[in-house]
Amino acid sequence: MSAEPRRIRLDLAYDGTGFAGWQLQPGVRTVQGDLEAALSRLQGERPVRIRGAGRTDAGVHARAQVADCEIETELDDDDIGYALRRILPVDLRPCRVRTVSKDFHARNSARSKTYAYHLDVSAAGDPFRARYALHQPRPLDRDALEEALNRLPGRRDWSGFVGTLNGLRNTVRELTAVSVSTPSDSELVLRFTADGFLYHMVRNLVGTLLEVGLGRREPDHVLHVLARRDRTLGGPTAAPHGLFLESVLYDEDLCGGADDRE
Amino acid sequence: MSAEPRRIRLDLAYDGTGFAGWQLQPGVRTVQGDLEAALSRLQGERPVRIRGAGRTDAGVHARAQVADCEIETELDDDDIGYALRRILPVDLRPCRVRTVSKDFHARNSARSKTYAYHLDVSAAGDPFRARYALHQPRPLDRDALEEALNRLPGRRDWSGFVGTLNGLRNTVRELTAVSVSTPSDSELVLRFTADGFLYHMVRNLVGTLLEVGLGRREPDHVLHVLARRDRTLGGPTAAPHGLFLESVLYDEDLCGGADDRE
Repeated sequence: MSAEPRRIRLDLAYDGTGFAGWQLQPGVRTVQGDLEAALSRLQGERPVRIRGAGRTDAGVHARAQVADCEIETELDDDDIGYALRRILPVDLRPCRVRTVSKDFHARNSARSKTYAYHLDVSAAGDPFRARYALHQPRPLDRDALEEALNRLPGRRDWSGFVGTLNGLRNTVRELTAVSVSTPSDSELVLRFTADGFLYHMVRNLVGTLLEVGLGRREPDHVLHVLARRDRTLGGPTAAPHGLFLESVLYDEDLCGGADDRE
Repeated sequence: MSAEPRRIRLDLAYDGTGFAGWQLQPGVRTVQGDLEAALSRLQGERPVRIRGAGRTDAGVHARAQVADCEIETELDDDDIGYALRRILPVDLRPCRVRTVSKDFHARNSARSKTYAYHLDVSAAGDPFRARYALHQPRPLDRDALEEALNRLPGRRDWSGFVGTLNGLRNTVRELTAVSVSTPSDSELVLRFTADGFLYHMVRNLVGTLLEVGLGRREPDHVLHVLARRDRTLGGPTAAPHGLFLESVLYDEDLCGGADDRE
């Protein structure tokens, strides 16, 4: 019953409502904690350490998070997925499991990530989206919001939109794509693709874009915040429950994070 | 500050997860209970009694439930809606409030109702639909399921699909329309429109249709259950969380229950 250790990649979807975020913390339910406990059952309770592409915050959701770990089990990839789906609760779903190169690293190998922020712009609020979208019933100037959004892409220092700067760190990232979509009259979705994101970066950007959409700031204000590198100039951090990690793309692995979802 | 009493119609959406159903019961949270408490605040805490078009069961959702009540308030219809949305939690949303004829009765005036049953047919299960669709990962024979579904419409005695028959009651209803739709590869929605529904009728029909879809029964089995009027011949009662009251239509009132919803 001995098996060679191998590295597997897990593509995951989860409803962040019931988790204190991705990262393992004692005494609270985390995505990493649930996954490691489930995976360790597949190799005789020996501990497993997983690495995630992005450490989503408490309340933030994922449609296609990617994680990897080393595991020793006789089970093939499909059976690992099947077993994990049986063990894990309905709010944390492994969508796909595959054996990858020993060099694969969910975070370091990632070429880009896309986050989507969902707004419910209906007057009454949709009770079925209350956990998955920020309710924003006040009229938004979508042109102004989009104008501000389109100012953002580029390789920049994002200090002005970072939550906390504890310790030295590189705050330069390349935001490669942004978009606004309206799946229905009551939904507005803002998407951000970058080679990496900083702590609270998307939620701080959204909070400031909403200030623009509500007419409290001019579209150029986002550039002002960037130039001044002063977080206090931006809008409030948007609530976590509107945010989704939508996909993670890899160079080596042509099967990107989101290809087999829908 | 005195106002003439008037009758109002409320169009409501709610996530049934947190409710022990529509009907008022002591000691538990119900839709009727929450609404009556909120409405009574609008007329100086004098009690309000509301009537719902359909008494949805524990865990069943509504996209466009209709209720009515008499109320004495200086507030106009829009302001009542606004006030209720401020008072009520995010899982119970009044979408529209309008003054109606004294003769309007949410249940008795209803011409037809439509219920939708949502299935998540993906292998892994979508964590964002776990509260709103029954996960059914085993392959379904959609042709057989649809064949059985299409046998159902008509004016019939539905005793074979009724949960309990406590006391004498008329078990004849006219099922006027049924349909299957697949909004995406992973979603299957069954719709039923009738002049009225009996206790657990839709969920019992769905449970039996799934037996057909899973190949355990022939499509004609639904007619056998109807002819024998024997509930024990049908499949299990499908779980409540896949069921939505989608719309209620009225003759007198041309503004049907679902017209202003998405």
